[in-house]
Parts: sequence; structure tokens; C-alpha cells
Amino acid sequence: MRRLLKQLKTTLAELSDLHAISAVLDWDQQTYMPPMGADDRGNQLATLARIRHKRATAPALGRLLDKLAVQTRDLDPDSDDACLVRVSKREYEKTTRIPSSWVSEFARLTTLAQSSWIEARREANFARFLPDLQRIIELRRAYAGFFPPSAHIYDPLLDDFEPGMKTAEVQAIFNALRPEQVALVKAIASQPAVDTSFLTREYPEQSQWEFGLDVIQRFGYSLQSGRLDRAAHPFCTSFGMNDVRITTRFNPNWPSSAMFGTMHETGHALYDLGFDPALARTPLASGASMALHESQSRMWENLVGRSLPFWKFFYPRLQSIFPGQLGEVSLESFYRAVNRVQPSFIRVEADEATYNLHIMLRMELEIALMEGSLEAKDLPAAWNQRFEEYIGLTPPNDRLGVLQDIHWSGGMFGYFPTYALGNLVSAQLWEKINQDIPDLTGQVEQGQFGALREWLRQNIHRHGSKFEPQELIRRVTGSGITPQPYLRYLKAKYSSIYSLG
Amino acid sequence: MRRLLKQLKTTLAELSDLHAISAVLDWDQQTYMPPMGADDRGNQLATLARIRHKRATAPALGRLLDKLAVQTRDLDPDSDDACLVRVSKREYEKTTRIPSSWVSEFARLTTLAQSSWIEARREANFARFLPDLQRIIELRRAYAGFFPPSAHIYDPLLDDFEPGMKTAEVQAIFNALRPEQVALVKAIASQPAVDTSFLTREYPEQSQWEFGLDVIQRFGYSLQSGRLDRAAHPFCTSFGMNDVRITTRFNPNWPSSAMFGTMHETGHALYDLGFDPALARTPLASGASMALHESQSRMWENLVGRSLPFWKFFYPRLQSIFPGQLGEVSLESFYRAVNRVQPSFIRVEADEATYNLHIMLRMELEIALMEGSLEAKDLPAAWNQRFEEYIGLTPPNDRLGVLQDIHWSGGMFGYFPTYALGNLVSAQLWEKINQDIPDLTGQVEQGQFGALREWLRQNIHRHGSKFEPQELIRRVTGSGITPQPYLRYLKAKYSSIYSLG
Repeated sequence: MRRLLKQLKTTLAELSDLHAISAVLDWDQQTYMPPMGADDRGNQLATLARIRHKRATAPALGRLLDKLAVQTRDLDPDSDDACLVRVSKREYEKTTRIPSSWVSEFARLTTLAQSSWIEARREANFARFLPDLQRIIELRRAYAGFFPPSAHIYDPLLDDFEPGMKTAEVQAIFNALRPEQVALVKAIASQPAVDTSFLTREYPEQSQWEFGLDVIQRFGYSLQSGRLDRAAHPFCTSFGMNDVRITTRFNPNWPSSAMFGTMHETGHALYDLGFDPALARTPLASGASMALHESQSRMWENLVGRSLPFWKFFYPRLQSIFPGQLGEVSLESFYRAVNRVQPSFIRVEADEATYNLHIMLRMELEIALMEGSLEAKDLPAAWNQRFEEYIGLTPPNDRLGVLQDIHWSGGMFGYFPTYALGNLVSAQLWEKINQDIPDLTGQVEQGQFGALREWLRQNIHRHGSKFEPQELIRRVTGSGITPQPYLRYLKAKYSSIYSLG
Repeated sequence: MRRLLKQLKTTLAELSDLHAISAVLDWDQQTYMPPMGADDRGNQLATLARIRHKRATAPALGRLLDKLAVQTRDLDPDSDDACLVRVSKREYEKTTRIPSSWVSEFARLTTLAQSSWIEARREANFARFLPDLQRIIELRRAYAGFFPPSAHIYDPLLDDFEPGMKTAEVQAIFNALRPEQVALVKAIASQPAVDTSFLTREYPEQSQWEFGLDVIQRFGYSLQSGRLDRAAHPFCTSFGMNDVRITTRFNPNWPSSAMFGTMHETGHALYDLGFDPALARTPLASGASMALHESQSRMWENLVGRSLPFWKFFYPRLQSIFPGQLGEVSLESFYRAVNRVQPSFIRVEADEATYNLHIMLRMELEIALMEGSLEAKDLPAAWNQRFEEYIGLTPPNDRLGVLQDIHWSGGMFGYFPTYALGNLVSAQLWEKINQDIPDLTGQVEQGQFGALREWLRQNIHRHGSKFEPQELIRRVTGSGITPQPYLRYLKAKYSSIYSLG
């Protein structure tokens, strides 16, 4: 068994290296690559993907995993080796079910669809994207068919992002969440608007940069094993446990964008930096799921970064950097401004109170498309009708509606729900953390984040993807994902900010 | 034949992609990688190297090349396809002659030797490096033995950098060059020293950066397909024909360093950007040899960048950027300062008149080590004796002597001569260019470099490595590499600057 495990780890280490290498190429493409380098980069990434796919689906790897599954049966199921065999076998079996003809067709089509979506969005012309979208939906339905029959056609799609999670579970969670969150937004809408005018003043980029860097270094992100760079779309990427980089973008007339975006990506980065080093160069050195990953980014962005204790410490610093812009603005006014609730069309600009509604709408439409109860051509109407119902606005055009997100053009059905689940998990963990660290608020008020970071590392980060997300959350909080903590958090926060009854 | 050629190109394209990918990882490591990322990066590069080596030496590739060598016999030998088969077959046959046990041992040993050399250099303690160096020399002698018997044991080593070139040819060239260059340096040494004091004033980095970027963009280097970044050791690297990047370093008290270093790397970059696009993703998309590559960098750095016509155009611009530092310094004084000849210990700081002497000394010692006529333990004494003879100085310690260069710790015997050959080729081409573009001086005085760049592209760049270097130079200038043009250039330039008889 030792010998076979060693052999497995060698194979997985090479696969892990190839994955990291693709990430480096992608990072470079999004940060520093000169514009004309795109074609060459495309070739390089395609070559890497082919090499990696061939190795990841090699029959010899399958046989090795079969043998090891038997031989590791008596190991502690929580041990690294048992988890490694289990997770690798699961991944191998999923990957090898997908015919390579499907993989090429999907790659070809999503490349084309990306262009047609960009055109369609620019022209606010859904018809232009429709034929590609229809074909993508067909392919995704075919994809679900490669797996053993499941309770719902959406299950295999969801499983790619939330291992083990079922559509019915997510629907139950969202059904409990939706009415309460809709009601909260309505209650807020009846209150006077919060003043955010001072956030539209001129905030020079270099000063925003310096403030952001100070914050995330206090969070515990180090430039010894990380970097902050500019990119059109903020992201976090990992090249190994000691090289996890983030990017951000700046709006000189809206400092919230870079400020909270940088904290958000740092939340992701701290997760990737916190895996047990024993998991290095294995598939276990990754987050447990997209929702778990998002719970980390949202926690640092919102539960920490948009909290009053946080700003008690950081607001005087921010004022000293921007005396002309904020010198006369009180802490309370600033805190309310960065927490303003305002129903709006675009998901990525949504506040905490409305964000999940954007997500639930998308998941419902995805499910209807997969089930066949909604046709792609009827998507804009279905979008607008539901948008009015949940958020109280009607998109004036499809650019501000159904065409706003890149996900569908890339065939990423099943991804959206993880954003909302991440919000729920962040609050669920936060309640537990506050029990375990009773002085947490006091520490945040002092700009101290060491105990919080260490708690996350011990309870979440170090396990990597050893456990399925629901299992991990249950081990830590005593229950699977539940919407109640998030609702408690939202209600408490906004009752205070908006003086709700 | 068409089918087999297509198959070959597919294989070579993937090898070319893997090579480019390694270059991206290396560029990142030298520019932006956070310090703790080094171990992960080492794993990634090693994995890539293994994958690439396996594919480059696959027996199926050998069989394909054998078949194609027969089938392409009747093609025009200058055609892209004929050259591709010829060059690929040559490369394949060289690579497969080297046992993989030698490759691993060489990789292992040079990694160790790199550390012992760094230590040895820091302590100026040759004894510390000696055991590793002895073993590297043994390995390099063994390497020569893998190839068919040659006229000289140094031939197979030289051939890795200058395909087709023989030791005897280089020796003949250097034997003609050495006495004349030694005499020139002596004559200069008897003249009054040139004043360079104003070059040691404070030159802020950002302004140096802007001046350098202006110069190389006028040379024709575009940020659409290139980048300028900072790195500890300046270099040029290529990720394909539309993404060729350079780096530079700044010394705030010696602007020559970044100024001429940036022009030098741009010379390399313009070569890599100038290959015929039809050669993309094949082994022909590379310079014909190290000497040819160096001829391009030295031409832009020295024949263009250190010329009086160049500074007639750029000096007023430089003065306007640095009015306090250069406002009172005449063009003539500045031109003399950046061309000062001063025998010194360190090769990379050497001026044009002494540089080749540093190289010839190294090649002679390398040959003696390979022949066995010099033992590694006697290297410092041999170095110092020859240094005194050629350059007129005796190194006070081995850090300023035999330990200064990284090459031998990396096992790179056979590389040094290409630096001097590159200088000779640059002048040889320059004479031909001035015949073909009679108004070249006038154009340079106007900051116009389009005709020069186009000449280089048509005559040198576009061919990539289709032809062996001596063959290419003969086609362009009518003769193989000869030292006379470089000697004529040096004598004319320094007779004027130093008022020699």
C-alpha cells in the first residue's frame, strides 16, 4: 500500500503542478500580458489542458485508485491518505464519464459563445446570443446524462461546484430564505435613503492602494507569499501554498469598489494559504467547495470589513489618508454609507440585503432551463418578471438584465447558487466563531485579526477538500447549511442602520 | 509527405508551447513571484522539463523524422519544410545521444554547484567551489564523448550554442583579433583619462525608465507585443512571436547601466519579434545561434546606442529630462564619457575595447580544461596570469577574477565565445548595412530606425534558425565571421575619442 500511495502521490503532484502552471499563465494573461500575446497564450493553455486531461483520465490511474480504494479500507476515514484516495477516485470517476467528443465540443462552443455574448451584451440584443445559449443548454443537459440517474437533472451540475450537495437541499434552503429577504428589502425601501454622496468624491488610486494593502496585511496576508496587482476583473489565484495572488480594480469616484473587493479576494487567499502543508501538491489542497470558498471571502469583506467595529479602528486611518474627502464625515455616516441598501440591476454591485435575491432568481431559471419547463427564447421575459417580483425593478434592457453575467456563455450552470450559499455559511460560521472567541468584537476594534484567522485555519482552512462541504460545516457548527444565522445577521444589522421596527 | 509534415508540426508545436510555458514561469520568477513561491515554482519547472524531455526524445518522433528526411529530399533545401526537418532531426539526434542518467546527474550537480559557487564568490574562496567544478568538468568531458569523434573535444560543446561552428575556426578568428585588440587598449591607456564624473550624479529611476522606454519604442519595440519590467539580472524572453519581453535594472548613480542595458535587450527582442510568422510554433522560430542573437543586442546597444549620431538626436532629450545633472555637459563630453575605455576586472562592466579580451581568456581556459592540459585547481593562477597579459591588471582576489561568472557553475562550457563572436558579427553586418543604406547615419541623427530595422528583419530576423550561423552570415555579407570589420570599427571610434595617432 505504501508503494502504491507513493505512486499515486507522484502522479497527483504532476497533475497539481500542471494545474498551477495553467493558473500562472492565466494570471499573467489577466495582469501583464501584452495585448498581442493572446493567441500564443491560447495555444499554450490548450496544450497544457490536453496534456493534463490525458494524464487525469489515464486508465493506469484508474487501476491504481481501484487498488488503493480496497487497500485503504481499514485506514481512519479522516486520515489524509484515506481522504486522498476517496477524493481522487471520485474526481477520476467523474472526469472519465465525460466523452472527449463532448469536451471538445463544449470547449469550442463556449469559446464562440463568449464572443456572441459580448456582442449581445454590448447591443443589448439577446437574439444574438440565443442560438449559442440553446446549444450550450443542450450540451449541459447531455452532460447530466453522463452520470447515474439522480433525483434532479441539476444535481450533477451542482455537484461540480458543491460536492455532494443536492438540488432539493438548496431549494429548501432558498425557499426559507427568499420570503424573509424579500420582506426585509421592502421594509428598508420604505425608510429614508442613506447619504452616499461623499463616496463619489475623487479618491486617488495610489492612496486607495495603500489603504487596501494596509488592511489586508493586518488581516494576515503577506507579500512574502502573495501579491496585489491590478486587473479588469478582480480574482484570487493560487500557484501552491506559498504563492497565492489577488488582483483588484479601482474606481476613483467610488472607493468601496477596491476597498471591499480587495478584502473579498484576501478572504479567498487566506483559505488557499491555510491548507495543511501535508496536503501540498494533492487535490486535497483546495477549498472544500465554491460555497466554502465564498464564505471566506464574504466573511472578510462583509462580516469583518463592513462592520462597525472594523471601522472604529480603520476609519481614522482612512480619514487621515483622505482628509479632504472624509474629514467632515462622521464614522456613523461612513458606516451607513458603505452599507447602503439599494435595489439595483447588476448582481456584482448588489448590497448584502439584495444580493441573494439576484442569485435565487438565476438558480430558478437555470433549473427551469435544465428541466425543459422554460425555453431559452423565453428567458428574458422570465428574468424580468421574477426580477420585478423579488427586487421590485424591471430591467430597461437585457444588458441590465439577463445578459449581464458571463457564466452562461461559459456553460457554467450550477455555479450561481454557491454565491448565496457562501453568504449563508459566512454568517453560520461567524456565530460559532463569536461563541469560541467571545472578545472577537473587541479584537476587531483594535485591528487585531490573529485569533479569527487562526480559528479559520484550524476549523476550515487546514482541511482543504478532505471533507464534503456539508460534512465540514456540520462538524464545525453542528448543522448543515441553514439560512437562519444569515437572516439574524441581516436583520440585526439593517434594523439598526435603517431604524426598522 | 503532407500528412507526415502535418503530424511533425503538431508535435513540434506542442514542444514549442511547453518551451514558451517554461519561459513564462521563469519570467514570473525573475520579476514578480513572491519570495516564498520558489519551491513550488521549482516543482512546476521540473515537471514541465520532464514532460518536455520525454516528448522531445520519443522514438515515434525519431521515426517520423527519419521518414521525412527521405521524403523531403527533393524539396528546395532553403524551403521552410526542408529546413524544419533538417533542424529538427539534428536536434533530435543530439538530444537522444545524451543518456538520461547523465541529464539527471548534470541537473543535480549544477544545482549544487550554483550554491557552492555563490558561497565561494562571496568568500572569494575558490577552494570551496573546486570539488563541484572538477565534477562538472568531468561530466562535460563525458558529454563530448557522446558525440561522434570530432577534431576537438570542445567542438560538441561549442556546437550547442553555435550550430556547425568548429573550435579551430573560432581560434583562428580570435588569434587574429587578440594582438590588435591588446595593442589598441595599450594605446588608449597611454592617453589622458576621460571624465565621467557627471555620470555618477543622482539620476532618479523613474526618469531613467521614461527615457529608456522612449528610446526603445523609437527603435520599434512596441508594448503591444512586449513589456519592460525590472529584474535583478536583465534579460529578454520570448513566449511566442507576439509576446517578447525584456527586463532591466537601475543604478541611480550610473545611468549607463539601464540605458545601454535596455537597448541591448531590445536588440534581442527585435530579433525574436522578427521571425517569419510561418515559422511560428516550430524550432525554426529562434535565433540562428547565440552569436547571431548577441550581434543584434550589441548592434543596438553599441553601434547604434553608443554612437555620436544617436546622441545628436537623443542627448537634447536626455538633457531636458536631467537638466541639473547634464545641463552644462556638452554632447561631446557626454559621448566620450559613455565610451570611456577603462581596463577593469569584471566582464559585464567592460567597455567595447576590452570586452573581447575577457572572453578570449575564458575560452582559452575552457579549452585547456577540456583538453586536460590545465587542471581545475590551477585555474586561478592561470586566470590571473592571462589577465595581466591581456588587460594589464592582476585581480586582487578570485571574486574579481575566476569566480565572477555564473556560467561554469551551470556547466555552460562553450557559451562564452559567442559573446565575442556576437561583437564581431555586429560590426560585420553594420558595414554591409551602411553600404545598403547609405543615409543610415543621417537617419539615426533624426531618430529614425525604420530602414535599419527592416534591413535586419529581411536579412537576418525572418530566417529564424533555418540556416546555420556561418552560412547565414556568408549569405548576407559574402564571408563567414571575420574580425576585420570590428577592428576597423574600434580603431576608427577610439582614434577619434582618444586622439590616437
